[in-house]
Amino acid sequence: MAPRHVINASVSPKGSLETLSQREVQQLSAAGSGSVYTLFRQCALAILNTSGHSDNAKTILELYKDFEVRIHQQDRGVRLELLNAPADAFVDGEMIASTREMLFSALRDIVYTESERGSPHIDLSNSQGITDYVFHLLRNARTLRPGVEPKMVVCWGGHSISAEEYRYSKKVGHELGLRKLDICTGCGPGVMKGPMKGATIAHAKQRINGSRYLGLTEPGIIAAETPNPIVNELVILPDIEKRLEAFVRVGHGIIIFPGGPGTAEEFLYLLGILMHPDNRELPFPVILTGPKSAAPYLQQLHAFVGATLGEAAQSHYQIIIDDPAEVARHMAQGLIMVKRFRRERNDAFHFNWLLRIEEGFQRPFEPSHANMASLQLKRELPPHALAANLRRAFSGIVAGNVKDKGIRLIEQHGPYEIHGDTAIMQPLDRLLQAFVNQHRMKLPGGTAYVPSYRVVT
Amino acid sequence: MAPRHVINASVSPKGSLETLSQREVQQLSAAGSGSVYTLFRQCALAILNTSGHSDNAKTILELYKDFEVRIHQQDRGVRLELLNAPADAFVDGEMIASTREMLFSALRDIVYTESERGSPHIDLSNSQGITDYVFHLLRNARTLRPGVEPKMVVCWGGHSISAEEYRYSKKVGHELGLRKLDICTGCGPGVMKGPMKGATIAHAKQRINGSRYLGLTEPGIIAAETPNPIVNELVILPDIEKRLEAFVRVGHGIIIFPGGPGTAEEFLYLLGILMHPDNRELPFPVILTGPKSAAPYLQQLHAFVGATLGEAAQSHYQIIIDDPAEVARHMAQGLIMVKRFRRERNDAFHFNWLLRIEEGFQRPFEPSHANMASLQLKRELPPHALAANLRRAFSGIVAGNVKDKGIRLIEQHGPYEIHGDTAIMQPLDRLLQAFVNQHRMKLPGGTAYVPSYRVVT
Amino acid sequence: MAPRHVINASVSPKGSLETLSQREVQQLSAAGSGSVYTLFRQCALAILNTSGHSDNAKTILELYKDFEVRIHQQDRGVRLELLNAPADAFVDGEMIASTREMLFSALRDIVYTESERGSPHIDLSNSQGITDYVFHLLRNARTLRPGVEPKMVVCWGGHSISAEEYRYSKKVGHELGLRKLDICTGCGPGVMKGPMKGATIAHAKQRINGSRYLGLTEPGIIAAETPNPIVNELVILPDIEKRLEAFVRVGHGIIIFPGGPGTAEEFLYLLGILMHPDNRELPFPVILTGPKSAAPYLQQLHAFVGATLGEAAQSHYQIIIDDPAEVARHMAQGLIMVKRFRRERNDAFHFNWLLRIEEGFQRPFEPSHANMASLQLKRELPPHALAANLRRAFSGIVAGNVKDKGIRLIEQHGPYEIHGDTAIMQPLDRLLQAFVNQHRMKLPGGTAYVPSYRVVT
Amino acid sequence: MAPRHVINASVSPKGSLETLSQREVQQLSAAGSGSVYTLFRQCALAILNTSGHSDNAKTILELYKDFEVRIHQQDRGVRLELLNAPADAFVDGEMIASTREMLFSALRDIVYTESERGSPHIDLSNSQGITDYVFHLLRNARTLRPGVEPKMVVCWGGHSISAEEYRYSKKVGHELGLRKLDICTGCGPGVMKGPMKGATIAHAKQRINGSRYLGLTEPGIIAAETPNPIVNELVILPDIEKRLEAFVRVGHGIIIFPGGPGTAEEFLYLLGILMHPDNRELPFPVILTGPKSAAPYLQQLHAFVGATLGEAAQSHYQIIIDDPAEVARHMAQGLIMVKRFRRERNDAFHFNWLLRIEEGFQRPFEPSHANMASLQLKRELPPHALAANLRRAFSGIVAGNVKDKGIRLIEQHGPYEIHGDTAIMQPLDRLLQAFVNQHRMKLPGGTAYVPSYRVVT
Repeated sequence: MAPRHVINASVSPKGSLETLSQREVQQLSAAGSGSVYTLFRQCALAILNTSGHSDNAKTILELYKDFEVRIHQQDRGVRLELLNAPADAFVDGEMIASTREMLFSALRDIVYTESERGSPHIDLSNSQGITDYVFHLLRNARTLRPGVEPKMVVCWGGHSISAEEYRYSKKVGHELGLRKLDICTGCGPGVMKGPMKGATIAHAKQRINGSRYLGLTEPGIIAAETPNPIVNELVILPDIEKRLEAFVRVGHGIIIFPGGPGTAEEFLYLLGILMHPDNRELPFPVILTGPKSAAPYLQQLHAFVGATLGEAAQSHYQIIIDDPAEVARHMAQGLIMVKRFRRERNDAFHFNWLLRIEEGFQRPFEPSHANMASLQLKRELPPHALAANLRRAFSGIVAGNVKDKGIRLIEQHGPYEIHGDTAIMQPLDRLLQAFVNQHRMKLPGGTAYVPSYRVVT
Repeated sequence: MAPRHVINASVSPKGSLETLSQREVQQLSAAGSGSVYTLFRQCALAILNTSGHSDNAKTILELYKDFEVRIHQQDRGVRLELLNAPADAFVDGEMIASTREMLFSALRDIVYTESERGSPHIDLSNSQGITDYVFHLLRNARTLRPGVEPKMVVCWGGHSISAEEYRYSKKVGHELGLRKLDICTGCGPGVMKGPMKGATIAHAKQRINGSRYLGLTEPGIIAAETPNPIVNELVILPDIEKRLEAFVRVGHGIIIFPGGPGTAEEFLYLLGILMHPDNRELPFPVILTGPKSAAPYLQQLHAFVGATLGEAAQSHYQIIIDDPAEVARHMAQGLIMVKRFRRERNDAFHFNWLLRIEEGFQRPFEPSHANMASLQLKRELPPHALAANLRRAFSGIVAGNVKDKGIRLIEQHGPYEIHGDTAIMQPLDRLLQAFVNQHRMKLPGGTAYVPSYRVVT
Repeated sequence: MAPRHVINASVSPKGSLETLSQREVQQLSAAGSGSVYTLFRQCALAILNTSGHSDNAKTILELYKDFEVRIHQQDRGVRLELLNAPADAFVDGEMIASTREMLFSALRDIVYTESERGSPHIDLSNSQGITDYVFHLLRNARTLRPGVEPKMVVCWGGHSISAEEYRYSKKVGHELGLRKLDICTGCGPGVMKGPMKGATIAHAKQRINGSRYLGLTEPGIIAAETPNPIVNELVILPDIEKRLEAFVRVGHGIIIFPGGPGTAEEFLYLLGILMHPDNRELPFPVILTGPKSAAPYLQQLHAFVGATLGEAAQSHYQIIIDDPAEVARHMAQGLIMVKRFRRERNDAFHFNWLLRIEEGFQRPFEPSHANMASLQLKRELPPHALAANLRRAFSGIVAGNVKDKGIRLIEQHGPYEIHGDTAIMQPLDRLLQAFVNQHRMKLPGGTAYVPSYRVVT
Repeated sequence: MAPRHVINASVSPKGSLETLSQREVQQLSAAGSGSVYTLFRQCALAILNTSGHSDNAKTILELYKDFEVRIHQQDRGVRLELLNAPADAFVDGEMIASTREMLFSALRDIVYTESERGSPHIDLSNSQGITDYVFHLLRNARTLRPGVEPKMVVCWGGHSISAEEYRYSKKVGHELGLRKLDICTGCGPGVMKGPMKGATIAHAKQRINGSRYLGLTEPGIIAAETPNPIVNELVILPDIEKRLEAFVRVGHGIIIFPGGPGTAEEFLYLLGILMHPDNRELPFPVILTGPKSAAPYLQQLHAFVGATLGEAAQSHYQIIIDDPAEVARHMAQGLIMVKRFRRERNDAFHFNWLLRIEEGFQRPFEPSHANMASLQLKRELPPHALAANLRRAFSGIVAGNVKDKGIRLIEQHGPYEIHGDTAIMQPLDRLLQAFVNQHRMKLPGGTAYVPSYRVVT
């Protein structure tokens, strides 16, 4: 067990707007036993674990078993009392402002999600209702800013990447920042941090105040991908599907950097949606990029898309190798098209209402062994349906790798089995094998990777 | 019928944070027939009628029968299209910023109130639940600001007062403003405007940005007491009782200026609460004040309190005649006590959780003829219960005077009858008679006042 | 002698940017005997005397003979120690922020003027050099803001006017403010305060932060026209001619309200400049306005201009009676022309470089009895030269009325004598007589006006 | 000759406060021949050459021989027209905001310095007068902010350092930034950039707006040490001695990183001042620090100080190896002492008036061959006098290395000769030799270093 430094502290939401009603405080504090409390404690732990190199949620939870957080109502608002908290987020005994903000963001999102449970104006039984719900969550988190022109660039990619890939992602962020664009990521380390860091320096050079570094996460993933402290807007969506929908509805364009199965999941999700006939005319700039050394990886991913979803799928993105300025220029031009389109169709700049997302992409996928085994991965499926299932396969693999629940399932029942057509299974296996070889499954320095799946052709 | 100037215009929520989901837009626009739409249209009309001298809601609604408001979703957020709108709120064709803000505040509050209808976390069946609900409404309106020291001074008093009383209220506002205090009123004209105007000048002198001019209203009263444009935070509570609770929970002290039955209602509500044994130790500065000419009026009100609720009731406020600086100094000192108390008891600065309000004060009172006739106005009641019933009596009288629904009831069934002990009825009758003599029942210049009630001893 | 309240206090320039070098502190504090100290003390006294109703500088100086101000260098910048200061500018012992700011503005301007004395880059021997100097003074006071569109409206008029005229000036200010225009005045009471007060309320309604209320004064006039506390930029120019030049170079348009000889002086100065052939094409909106009751006064002034300077002079302004909205609309339209012209000619928005001001208007006029007696007031002069001399005549009369030095001269040598053509002297005498009859020479309530001049035809 | 990209562009001072009088514009534009223009052109070129790797001013000037800058007065203020400008500072044709700001800062400082030339209130004949002048220059650049607590940390060190030293300086900046401290450097690359970059990220994490990254330079050095774009306040002092005085008067503490002769010059200057008996009680935190690999260098410098100036000199600083957090903690604690001392002595936070700097340190040193040869470097001198002369020796070496004028002198007359006691000359020679061996004399990658001096014992 790693050595740990802990601290006891009390923090107030200076600069935050969070207030709680007495009932909400009670819910969160009631004997520390409720599921709301458990959830909040877990997110708080992840947020505090800023320098945590472990991307294994279970490890973190065990390392800080005695961590506690108590909520008090007081004169200047809500106060959090932390016991046995990781000491990383403190400078000379004072909590770093970004960490403090994120704690209260987590509080806000968890309380809101709880309070909306069972509300008659939330209708999760259909696609439109789910989209409305995502909108409500983001609005409550003050993420939706009317009147701001499209400039939110989503960066997807691994949290566990090479030093060269990390530096490259910083450079791309720098070029995006010089063009005054904002950054949205999954808010963890690696590619989720690099572009934000680069953009921070560039925004300073451009004398821009109020830049946005938006992090979208969900309770299952937050512990493994601890929020990086540059994130200045953190939103915890209730599950992975709401988070993915949030990415594509608030982001105006997407850049995909090298990554592991999580990145592949996101990429397939995106392709599945963009390939839907209803979205044909909708401009949505997507760029695959990386340093020269990542060219083989990007080509392999590209080939996998071609082999499984076909050429039409490949037309939805562009590959740019080792040219950060070109990536940013291309994105900036794409955003002009997005702006023009939204204006013509009277769609909101701050939320992509017109994007059609089929219910299949919105429904949570439970990565049980049974569900994984019964995934349909056949060529005769329409491409966007196949993309949806491939997305689910990768989702399961991610869960088995880094999520608390997934890890326990694998420990119990062994690796998942995935079945399908050879024409799909073979490229899939090759891709996953490449991920393993390139150490894209775990943070470097860990023990040898033990696969959480088995491809059965 | 008065001449009217109308205008068609389209406004966007520049500087506002309001965004709507598609479902919310649909609710509001659906055929223009739903009750949500009707309510919003009515509030919008009142807000636009900035210079309207009529305090009769019915008149206004009839004058602008063809007024329409349409809601559109668009690139930069929600847009309102107004047809046949009163032209007062426009300067050379452009809507005054404060009016625009208030329109979107109304939208926000009406949409939120609707969306919370039936939510499982709203429980209006008990006192604590109602208080939580008021908290939620105010929080959603961003009225609750943690970390700000107690400085919100509520000013109550008539919307229809003499020029001298108006000037006096401005002077008091000026002195409050010089002491850096914020103002909260019912947001209409008269005493609801004077202190805000005086404070605006004083805040400019003190170089204070971000001063708060909070207006609390409700749908039934807004048309009669059109929001004055200095209000920079408008909240529309669902009914008169929620509005009264909002006043005493967000206000840190209250100043009562001369007014009519509406002011008497507010004063009795306040006394009823402060007299509750649980609130004995809770500091709550209350000042009755007016210019020299208003001294007899204030004395009469004071005497009425003494005659009906007793000397104990009189100890909860202080009377200061014709001395604005003294009023402000006294209030500033009272606020120091409030701050100390909240800090000691760990109560929020931004919401007075510790104030005990009995359910009787929280339940809406329906001023039907039957309800008015059966009010218990007897000496043997405990003082705070008697105060509650006297409050209801005045509430009914206000409804009969200025509210659309009340006016129609009186037109149909004649004046309300109020019964009770002679020892209460006589002072009540004298007070009401004085209100009539002093033209405190209607805006000056109207037709002779026709009483909406009959005191039966 | 009036009763007086004095206070001792120590103030720091919170929110001000003033810092002083040690030499500057020494200059100001050296034995309290230097002329720099005397000047600063006198201005400080005027600024502190916020509620002073006396417009007689001598009276004020005598009333506060024992007033002292000491300057200290300290950790957080410069600190002023005030002894026996007028208590008006304090609220519960704390100085009003605007007064504090103005004290430090006076310090800034007096120190700067002193430091520039004899600088080789200041050349007051020619017109261009004087204009450059005015520019430097205003730039040092941070009055020149590049990039801001033309919207600075100068309001000229009496500091001693009727209640109706005062209310009217507030209404005009309100209409200007609703159109988002800024206000510049001589910074005293009366017409120098009314428009600023009206605009403050209107700017609050329009949610405008950072509005400008610019007051331009000079040491001789400041004591008589104590700065009103709404002024949020105070500049003390070294003499009356620099002040007049500052008005016409930073103002984008001018509104003239009823006033006394000071207003007439300003009006004649303006006409003299606008009539110069070089300024023929330069747009400069000028409006004479007042309430209905002021119509005869405005007509008389208009007739005086016609009789002395001719019809061409009358074409440079417009008269609008009793219509604040029309005044503001007309000004707003005029400013559009100003903006277009500046852009076409590449002139600065923040400083009217292209306006030609002849040296005769820039040279200080010393109102000695000899200078007053030898003024050329003859029809054969070119109109703009005659305007210049008429301006000087009024300047002398103002000095004799309200300035310390002028009052002493009149006490010693009796009233000034003014000579000239009958065709000019008669209308002049009539105009001055009207000023006396309308109490436009002194604040109402004073002793009977004793003329400081004698018109000799 | 290196390839070059040039661009023609026109920039306005958006976000800058600079305005110029017509005379000032004329001075700067007159035929492009005046010395003011030459100076401005040279600084502008250096500012635009953001990515320039050459630290040789002559090379840069020759590479962009046809670069021109024209100044125009226009509607929105001053506009600069650039011809054949280095393209580095442009993103897709638009100038980076920080570069634009710096251009106008250069304009401001050069115009001000010129305008003050010969002013009677500038007295450079004595020490106090020179200090006042430095104060005026900094005040005009708005660098002096009263009311801000001591937190300006000066970072000195080389512009040409190893990658490891650069990373270390970033880490130290990050730790300083986490403690909310501001950074001041010579504004070039290397150690002048690293701490600013680290602090930018840390300030973002601490949610601090308005952090200061102050760069102090002078015309002779700016071309060689091109301002890095994170600098958000650039001040160009007239010569190296004013710049050094500015560092020690606005900085509250100093951190010295590895560097070359320029750093040694700064360090000796600082020691010479701190050793003055009058400064004995004055707290001034000084830290020498570097990564582990720099330990020998730091020890050598430390030994050189011991050998030449003695143990007393060594007591004025602390050496911390490879511990960024400890450096920042130590500095933060030192600043508490500074604050306490300034408060006790009533000295300004924003300018260290109490620090005694002898005239010898303030007088420019002209590094002619004669002056260099006649420097007194003898043990019998009082230590602070010896420190002053050693400082001059290094100053000359720097000039010969990187400054346009110095390089030309060396080209003409061969290397400088430096004479002195063996006990001083030997350690000096060893130190300089070490600088050469460690490539601390030139940017890596250049041609072999040709010494600009010869130590003669």
